[in-house]
Amino acid sequence: MKVGVIGCGYWGPNLVRNFLQLPEVTGVACCDLDTTKLERVKRLFPSVETTTRAEDLLLDEKIEAIAVATPVHTHHSLGEMVLKHRKHLLVEKPMANSSRRCLELIELASEVNRLVMVGHTFEYTAAVNKIKEIVASGELGDILYVSSTRVNLGLFQQDINVIWDLAPHDISIINYVLGKSPVGVNAQGSSHYKKGIEDVATLTLNYDNGLVAFIHVSWLDPNKIRRTTFVGSKKMLVYDDISAQEKIKIYDKGVEAPPYYETYGEFHFSYRYGDIFVPRIEDYEPLRAEVAHFVDCIKHGKIPRSDGFSGLRVVSVLEAAQRSLRAQGRFMPVVYRGVSNHGVLHPIGQRELQILRAG
Amino acid sequence: MKVGVIGCGYWGPNLVRNFLQLPEVTGVACCDLDTTKLERVKRLFPSVETTTRAEDLLLDEKIEAIAVATPVHTHHSLGEMVLKHRKHLLVEKPMANSSRRCLELIELASEVNRLVMVGHTFEYTAAVNKIKEIVASGELGDILYVSSTRVNLGLFQQDINVIWDLAPHDISIINYVLGKSPVGVNAQGSSHYKKGIEDVATLTLNYDNGLVAFIHVSWLDPNKIRRTTFVGSKKMLVYDDISAQEKIKIYDKGVEAPPYYETYGEFHFSYRYGDIFVPRIEDYEPLRAEVAHFVDCIKHGKIPRSDGFSGLRVVSVLEAAQRSLRAQGRFMPVVYRGVSNHGVLHPIGQRELQILRAG
Amino acid sequence: MKVGVIGCGYWGPNLVRNFLQLPEVTGVACCDLDTTKLERVKRLFPSVETTTRAEDLLLDEKIEAIAVATPVHTHHSLGEMVLKHRKHLLVEKPMANSSRRCLELIELASEVNRLVMVGHTFEYTAAVNKIKEIVASGELGDILYVSSTRVNLGLFQQDINVIWDLAPHDISIINYVLGKSPVGVNAQGSSHYKKGIEDVATLTLNYDNGLVAFIHVSWLDPNKIRRTTFVGSKKMLVYDDISAQEKIKIYDKGVEAPPYYETYGEFHFSYRYGDIFVPRIEDYEPLRAEVAHFVDCIKHGKIPRSDGFSGLRVVSVLEAAQRSLRAQGRFMPVVYRGVSNHGVLHPIGQRELQILRAG
Amino acid sequence: MKVGVIGCGYWGPNLVRNFLQLPEVTGVACCDLDTTKLERVKRLFPSVETTTRAEDLLLDEKIEAIAVATPVHTHHSLGEMVLKHRKHLLVEKPMANSSRRCLELIELASEVNRLVMVGHTFEYTAAVNKIKEIVASGELGDILYVSSTRVNLGLFQQDINVIWDLAPHDISIINYVLGKSPVGVNAQGSSHYKKGIEDVATLTLNYDNGLVAFIHVSWLDPNKIRRTTFVGSKKMLVYDDISAQEKIKIYDKGVEAPPYYETYGEFHFSYRYGDIFVPRIEDYEPLRAEVAHFVDCIKHGKIPRSDGFSGLRVVSVLEAAQRSLRAQGRFMPVVYRGVSNHGVLHPIGQRELQILRAG
Repeated sequence: MKVGVIGCGYWGPNLVRNFLQLPEVTGVACCDLDTTKLERVKRLFPSVETTTRAEDLLLDEKIEAIAVATPVHTHHSLGEMVLKHRKHLLVEKPMANSSRRCLELIELASEVNRLVMVGHTFEYTAAVNKIKEIVASGELGDILYVSSTRVNLGLFQQDINVIWDLAPHDISIINYVLGKSPVGVNAQGSSHYKKGIEDVATLTLNYDNGLVAFIHVSWLDPNKIRRTTFVGSKKMLVYDDISAQEKIKIYDKGVEAPPYYETYGEFHFSYRYGDIFVPRIEDYEPLRAEVAHFVDCIKHGKIPRSDGFSGLRVVSVLEAAQRSLRAQGRFMPVVYRGVSNHGVLHPIGQRELQILRAG
Repeated sequence: MKVGVIGCGYWGPNLVRNFLQLPEVTGVACCDLDTTKLERVKRLFPSVETTTRAEDLLLDEKIEAIAVATPVHTHHSLGEMVLKHRKHLLVEKPMANSSRRCLELIELASEVNRLVMVGHTFEYTAAVNKIKEIVASGELGDILYVSSTRVNLGLFQQDINVIWDLAPHDISIINYVLGKSPVGVNAQGSSHYKKGIEDVATLTLNYDNGLVAFIHVSWLDPNKIRRTTFVGSKKMLVYDDISAQEKIKIYDKGVEAPPYYETYGEFHFSYRYGDIFVPRIEDYEPLRAEVAHFVDCIKHGKIPRSDGFSGLRVVSVLEAAQRSLRAQGRFMPVVYRGVSNHGVLHPIGQRELQILRAG
Repeated sequence: MKVGVIGCGYWGPNLVRNFLQLPEVTGVACCDLDTTKLERVKRLFPSVETTTRAEDLLLDEKIEAIAVATPVHTHHSLGEMVLKHRKHLLVEKPMANSSRRCLELIELASEVNRLVMVGHTFEYTAAVNKIKEIVASGELGDILYVSSTRVNLGLFQQDINVIWDLAPHDISIINYVLGKSPVGVNAQGSSHYKKGIEDVATLTLNYDNGLVAFIHVSWLDPNKIRRTTFVGSKKMLVYDDISAQEKIKIYDKGVEAPPYYETYGEFHFSYRYGDIFVPRIEDYEPLRAEVAHFVDCIKHGKIPRSDGFSGLRVVSVLEAAQRSLRAQGRFMPVVYRGVSNHGVLHPIGQRELQILRAG
Repeated sequence: MKVGVIGCGYWGPNLVRNFLQLPEVTGVACCDLDTTKLERVKRLFPSVETTTRAEDLLLDEKIEAIAVATPVHTHHSLGEMVLKHRKHLLVEKPMANSSRRCLELIELASEVNRLVMVGHTFEYTAAVNKIKEIVASGELGDILYVSSTRVNLGLFQQDINVIWDLAPHDISIINYVLGKSPVGVNAQGSSHYKKGIEDVATLTLNYDNGLVAFIHVSWLDPNKIRRTTFVGSKKMLVYDDISAQEKIKIYDKGVEAPPYYETYGEFHFSYRYGDIFVPRIEDYEPLRAEVAHFVDCIKHGKIPRSDGFSGLRVVSVLEAAQRSLRAQGRFMPVVYRGVSNHGVLHPIGQRELQILRAG
């Protein structure tokens, strides 16, 4: 199988490198408008074909699948072109800049009988899959709340704010681990370097049953923090993506509601501290697992873990966050949240798509 | 000078210990309804008088000042009694459970010509004062935003939620460092152990000129984090209260808005990494500095750094947060924010109090 | 029971505070030549009697036991006086400045039928006792080597070098955990501030069966490190005394000797990474447990965990280290290593003492 | 310029990758006895020529220089072949398994008028060069001692012990920073997995003027630590190679010898804590700088920073350590320490070589 990669900026070369290492992949062709970037790719991977014209990839009959790693506002139009040329599509996160456009890509993929997969890379990490397994096992008890911080300095985007840039990671992780999508969102943020492009923000995702997820994202923090805490009724889990050896820690600490004390001064809840367990996490490059999964789904007609609906759910949360941001932090409902993965790849029923499109 | 302490639970014994070490203080008397607590104090500090009746302190003519370290809902009534008996008042944070009641204490103190000071302990730490000095010097440039996390496991309160319990620290620190109070607040939170008592929450404080402060507080986090980041246009400062040797770090990192690039893929802001500086912070117990300041203000008729107005401003933010919490996170204005410290101790003008009371 | 404390510098006040909190202790009397120190103690603990004359304590018939917390070179003479006045003796580590003098104290205690206990505080910590239990259980497999680092800035001693000051902690911990004493020692060090007083040093303790312990101590390191690693054939344990929440970590990592590969380039041993477990450690003040144990041994005629022989074994290692230091790091045998705790308190047989004295 | 690389195990592919990225390098040819390794290299870098026969490289006239990244016991014979074929030689550290063989390579290189450079990679890191600059500036005052820890789990070698494997890094760093070589060495260690191959060890390097360096190395430590502390009379510097953002910290802490106190209990040296400064360190791959330096020296006839004499000095320390290890830790002199880099590349005078050979 030959694959194409459109966009060779920051992320594209990683896609190229990982595709090259798959035994199923016989060749990779690359496209970028910037010839400097193409030259760099060529120097690193001399076997790769390069071009500045996307058509060269779209019209290459040997290419079965194309990955799109370009700025977000181009995802929809490039994705559409890829699908119209009947190639499978791997599109970087966020899937598009509106849920409507995600929906159009899903629908088009269904029509042309091709796959659409979204690059929610964290869903392919050993750590996040371990967390999903632990949460599903009930070891933590009921999840009470999730708190996630993803901050660092730099990597500003020109066309999207920090929520659209960084929060897709947290949203896709939390949705994936919890197996559900939030009902509504509050978001607050502010912009300091480019008007209208928030560079720091806080999101509160309201799931059903009082479950809440807090997300703090920033491009302006001198510390690099990537930490997500899952607080359960029995145990707590901290996922620190920066830590090399201790990515996941499970704290056997719980809070117990004590009998009510009327006495003046006796006002503490009891709590207990316990052991900490740090499970071993396999060490592999998640992007390798992601592209292998993509190729495997293509070969065997399987639905990808992070399919178009998964991308749509994340973008729906981002949209609600954006509306909240513009309405002084008001609670905004998430439109597309119930949409679930299908048991079969094709076709999506017309009625379902109508429902989806009707919102 | 003899002083009294009402409330000998978690915090009271620390007040006793620090008062005892001041040369100006000749004796300390303690009150608590719980005799076990009194016995513990007696064992630790045999010279201290103990009683279960607050009147014993209020009627003791030798006692000039009383510190109140009881649950929040009792601050107003106990504070009122203290002032009515013409003793100076040091009341724990938050000053009271409503801005109205803060105002009443301020007014009463003015009438009886006594001091009211609020136990915003962090305003007396070497670290926070160093930060205030650095920010005032302009070294960080303009402050763009502040982000604060104060989470740990335990110390639940029965009568107040986690915002009223933990956020007063962050609010008083940020107000003190910035020299201003926020215009409005958004707050989201949820409760898991006691209905109506939020145990985790996020606040967004909106100051003027787009300056924002994000505060995350929790009683349910397995990690103990107390970190406040001040992001300036020139440098950034991280205050980590848990760190023994590196409480304050100044990052010489800045982001520069680059010329606009149209080119596809060339979408990064430039940023520069620089040196880090960790200034030496003096090591002293802040509560010692706080009670010494209290005694000094009494002796010399000075207005305390954390006077009643400072307490009022913090409680006004808490009130706005509480209203936002009950309104699904909507933006809520802060009522008492412009009130500033007076140049002289007494008296507060009637007209000003009317304005204050009118909100 | 009334107790005395001789020496009120850095450590003495901690002894006073902990003795005062024992229910069995009815009174504490303190002695120091420096009246400033006595005044400080008096201010902190008004109930304590203070004096500059050791005789006041020695002749006080109500005093049953005396703790000696003075510079090392005075331990022997003061300890002798304490025992001669038929009082039980708790002496700070190291027990004395020579094994000969340790032996004399042991012999004297036996003669007067009084206890001698050495303040090896770490043997009373929850962490070290947990480690002893884990090692004894065989969970780590055979212990292959131990590596310990105890460095920080400051607390120079005038009369002893950094080995005599800091290494007693490591030696007593390792001896206690392993249940044995080393056969010989190599030591290297250097002095920079006071001629002949090494301020940094490295010790290698050679136990039998190839088991080795490496100890690095310094008064001149800007980092405060107190970490001891026990490498076992099955698992490894790291004891980090500085860490608040994660004092002990057990690594399920082992190295497996692979079949021998001759092939050029295939030269790696296999090793496996595994889970990490952080057991909960009880939180109590070790000095409290130590003085409680002392009082308990006195009351019930029991032999203390860190008895005179334990003190002697540590001093014998220090002596060998000192000799090695003076002989350019040559291996030096440890003289008193086989001496074990007795099953009964008194008396020590004459023959045994002769053997001991003969070395 | 075309270059060859012999040995494609762990390190070889890194050499290949970095040579490929140099503009001066037009081609790379690789040799390994293991075809699996060659296939891996070919897959990663399709342009590279591969062979299992070293002669193919030695006889290729276009190849000007060859890097040898094979097990240590083969360095000498392969290096000799490389030089005899009149190609410049870059040999991995340690340069050879005896000082005699280092000397032979130096002499041979001189005869054939070719360069010999040793892969002391750390001498090409931004951090170590920054440290050298800081030490040279006198900012730290006189260096009193150095303490270095390099431990981790795994990467056992079959033919050399942990001292020959890991300590060359520390020795080359310390020699390079201090600009001198130690007079003598003490070493202690033990082996647990392969008889005679120590897997943990401690070295004490004795420089002149009482300057000492302590080095602790292990293949069996569950923590990965790579930290070198330079303690100066004015300031202290900690180099933590694991830290991403804070590789170098300069502590403005000093110890001051106070006037002598006779008083009982007044036994502390004074010390002062100060600010900490974390200079920005440039971020580049040191191996890139190393191979660029190698190529630059070839092109311009310059003497490499880590020339053969530098390799010889490190091996002389390793030899002394090995002798000490076999003599129960006795102090052993370092034979080749005074040998210094030449001002010109060729030739080495016969007299000097005789002196060297005479030891």
